[in-house]
Amino acid sequence: MREVHRLEDLGAAGIRALVALAGRLRERPEPRALEGKVLALLFLNPSLRTQASFQAAMSRLGGGSFVIAPDRFIHKLEFDPAAVMDGETAENIAEAVPVLASYGDALGVRMFAAQRDLAEDLADERFELIRRLCGKPFLNMESAARHPCQSLADWRTLDDLGIPAAGGRFVLSWTNHPHPLPLAVASDTLRMAAMRGMEITVLRPEGYELPESVMAQAGQLASASGGSVRESDDPAEAMEGAHAVYAKSWASTRHYGDPEADLALRAGLSGWTVDGGWFAAAREDCRFLHCLPVRRGVVVTGAVLDGPRSAVVHQAENRMWTQMAALHRMLS
Amino acid sequence: MREVHRLEDLGAAGIRALVALAGRLRERPEPRALEGKVLALLFLNPSLRTQASFQAAMSRLGGGSFVIAPDRFIHKLEFDPAAVMDGETAENIAEAVPVLASYGDALGVRMFAAQRDLAEDLADERFELIRRLCGKPFLNMESAARHPCQSLADWRTLDDLGIPAAGGRFVLSWTNHPHPLPLAVASDTLRMAAMRGMEITVLRPEGYELPESVMAQAGQLASASGGSVRESDDPAEAMEGAHAVYAKSWASTRHYGDPEADLALRAGLSGWTVDGGWFAAAREDCRFLHCLPVRRGVVVTGAVLDGPRSAVVHQAENRMWTQMAALHRMLS
Amino acid sequence: MREVHRLEDLGAAGIRALVALAGRLRERPEPRALEGKVLALLFLNPSLRTQASFQAAMSRLGGGSFVIAPDRFIHKLEFDPAAVMDGETAENIAEAVPVLASYGDALGVRMFAAQRDLAEDLADERFELIRRLCGKPFLNMESAARHPCQSLADWRTLDDLGIPAAGGRFVLSWTNHPHPLPLAVASDTLRMAAMRGMEITVLRPEGYELPESVMAQAGQLASASGGSVRESDDPAEAMEGAHAVYAKSWASTRHYGDPEADLALRAGLSGWTVDGGWFAAAREDCRFLHCLPVRRGVVVTGAVLDGPRSAVVHQAENRMWTQMAALHRMLS
Repeated sequence: MREVHRLEDLGAAGIRALVALAGRLRERPEPRALEGKVLALLFLNPSLRTQASFQAAMSRLGGGSFVIAPDRFIHKLEFDPAAVMDGETAENIAEAVPVLASYGDALGVRMFAAQRDLAEDLADERFELIRRLCGKPFLNMESAARHPCQSLADWRTLDDLGIPAAGGRFVLSWTNHPHPLPLAVASDTLRMAAMRGMEITVLRPEGYELPESVMAQAGQLASASGGSVRESDDPAEAMEGAHAVYAKSWASTRHYGDPEADLALRAGLSGWTVDGGWFAAAREDCRFLHCLPVRRGVVVTGAVLDGPRSAVVHQAENRMWTQMAALHRMLS
Repeated sequence: MREVHRLEDLGAAGIRALVALAGRLRERPEPRALEGKVLALLFLNPSLRTQASFQAAMSRLGGGSFVIAPDRFIHKLEFDPAAVMDGETAENIAEAVPVLASYGDALGVRMFAAQRDLAEDLADERFELIRRLCGKPFLNMESAARHPCQSLADWRTLDDLGIPAAGGRFVLSWTNHPHPLPLAVASDTLRMAAMRGMEITVLRPEGYELPESVMAQAGQLASASGGSVRESDDPAEAMEGAHAVYAKSWASTRHYGDPEADLALRAGLSGWTVDGGWFAAAREDCRFLHCLPVRRGVVVTGAVLDGPRSAVVHQAENRMWTQMAALHRMLS
Repeated sequence: MREVHRLEDLGAAGIRALVALAGRLRERPEPRALEGKVLALLFLNPSLRTQASFQAAMSRLGGGSFVIAPDRFIHKLEFDPAAVMDGETAENIAEAVPVLASYGDALGVRMFAAQRDLAEDLADERFELIRRLCGKPFLNMESAARHPCQSLADWRTLDDLGIPAAGGRFVLSWTNHPHPLPLAVASDTLRMAAMRGMEITVLRPEGYELPESVMAQAGQLASASGGSVRESDDPAEAMEGAHAVYAKSWASTRHYGDPEADLALRAGLSGWTVDGGWFAAAREDCRFLHCLPVRRGVVVTGAVLDGPRSAVVHQAENRMWTQMAALHRMLS
């Protein structure tokens, strides 16, 4: 296993094997499995969970890690290999990425969406450039278009919670949020549920449709696994019989790259906060999922977050166990 | 052992066992004692010694650690679980603390006093909220009211220096400083010396009395251990026959939360700098202690710091050995 | 072995033994060699490669490390032990350095040149003060005058590339750059090639001569090793028959401490960018070396950097292997 990048490249069977290994490592520690091994972590955007869970994962397997992040080195990185670097940027990723990769047995990289142009972000071009420069086992720690490590953790969590793959009703819901956010988590969450073969409803108001290419790919992945994908703009209808609702806010695809227009549109959507009422027609044991960080009182009420439906801390903990499984596969 | 938080909960016998273990680990390394174990470190205020000594401690026992600090993640933390988070804060400690705890086998947290209201800081309410959210072995790395890890190191240092517990004369002295500082170190230093059963003089000018509740508790702890606590505002008298003077500046309790009034009061106290003259009537081998960082020429003269009386680097080194002992107890 | 500081103190034979050990560790991992050992890293200036390679080096040998850097603690350090610290600086290096050293089995320190006064920077006085305060095995991670870890990596790289020591023609060339940079790398690169016994040409325009003391010492080191040092201001002539060109920009020694005058002088030197034409009269297999970070299109063209002559990533990787060798010698 050379990388964690595209969920569809791992395949449903590959992911099942990974999350099974995660479960075994959670039960039976292997504190020497990666002794002498090093994980290089490059955060071009900051992080709480991702840094902590990857560093903890390596330590639990007996290896080490180091973090390079924008606030920890003096010079700015240049992303254009053809630039004449007589300005502010002092190092090109054409050197920086291979060098950091040379110090690690694997390299993890985070670079968020620029949120200027939808096609550009869906193509993930700057991130693909980094990936091609790596030359070592590679981990996507959230790019413009993807957040596969979150989805592996979520798959493990759905299993832990006993939510069925075949026949499980999964609602991916847009919510209110003060800012337009990237599409990465929503897109990979949809792919993940589709690859599990779940009955998926993408719940979102008008203007917040997920990109056509993402929806189309999810439809194909779901078909291949015996699941389905449909859309709704009505929470009450969408939540009927749901096993789980995965809340996540994202930017308006209609106004992508235009935050003012997005904020104007969402000004009328302040009711899109998950609260107890959402669960009226759901299964009695319907669970609430979110990737964190979450805006209490905006995305979801504190009552839901603090109540028995919430699995958000469980999901976050599974970041560590599933990343341990991936690192074990890649490096042991 | 589940936590390092309240010295009085550890008990004098418990602390003696810990500092004894610290001594053994200093003599006989145990580089595999904590293999595969992880210490999560959350610094809501920055640190030099505390971060370095905890990370070194885990490495020396074969474990790992990670650091999350305000300058290392993008979003601000919200401390009110009931807040509607539509502003600047992006993650509530109600999620952040359990998540970070889930990645570690123990969690250490630093959060300084807000220095607005004395009762609020003495109650340590925000810190207690974090502590209750942890659910894992917990380490106080300095809260509004306490700094127990410093006091464990200081106990070990007093033992190393051969300063007697019963009958040892211990002066805790306020000093000048450019800023009003929290009461945490002074309070726990007083508790520590009281639990050792020392003959303590709290030396401070008027307006800088330690809080009544802290003095009362110290009196009880000292009585129970065969020691005593008295106060003085006269360095010459207080230092008579002293085995050790522990210098520390703190905010005026009379003007707590009012830095301008505090600075006006201390403008007349610029003579409160420990210098060679302070030791005129002390024991010939009287030692100088301070938790660091220390303002040379303001808190204490360079001559004292660089002279044979100073134990400040020894104290700082003992942070590591005593924290190793605590981690060993908690996690092995 | 107590320190990596002055290349000439390590001696040519000592360096050869070190780079040989680096080669062995690259071939045969020793993931438990430094278990329970700790490397303290103090960055008074930021870093990408140096931090990453040292942390990776310790992990690969089974040890640990921690990083203290200006952006990671609240208080500023005071370098004058006699200062009355009633201003911004909150901790004196007289305490900070021994404390950090006490947590590690070795201490690495980075502190760049102040670039005010040439004699002051050549004397490296502030750095020598830190070094004297350490009391533990010590690593220079770049000071005002030296960067020995880079030179050890470069020695290993020249060996890897099959560039001969005796008879190898080595060009150290100044290049254009938007800023006046310290002399540390150029000076140690010159010492390194001299100790290898190479035939060295220092290529630089007028006004950018290396300091007389550095040139004189290099001449002596070269003589002792059977090599030679000469100067040139003509790239075409200097590059004749060269095995390697080591590009590096540095400040004008004529205008040292006067950046405006330096920038005015270098405004006429924009042609000093290494490009394919430079290699016209060099050996066909002549290699391009640089310590990184490098300004593409200013120091060297992207075509050279991305072409087969470039060894820059190889050099950077060798930072890790040679530092592992040094740490192994010092701590195992």
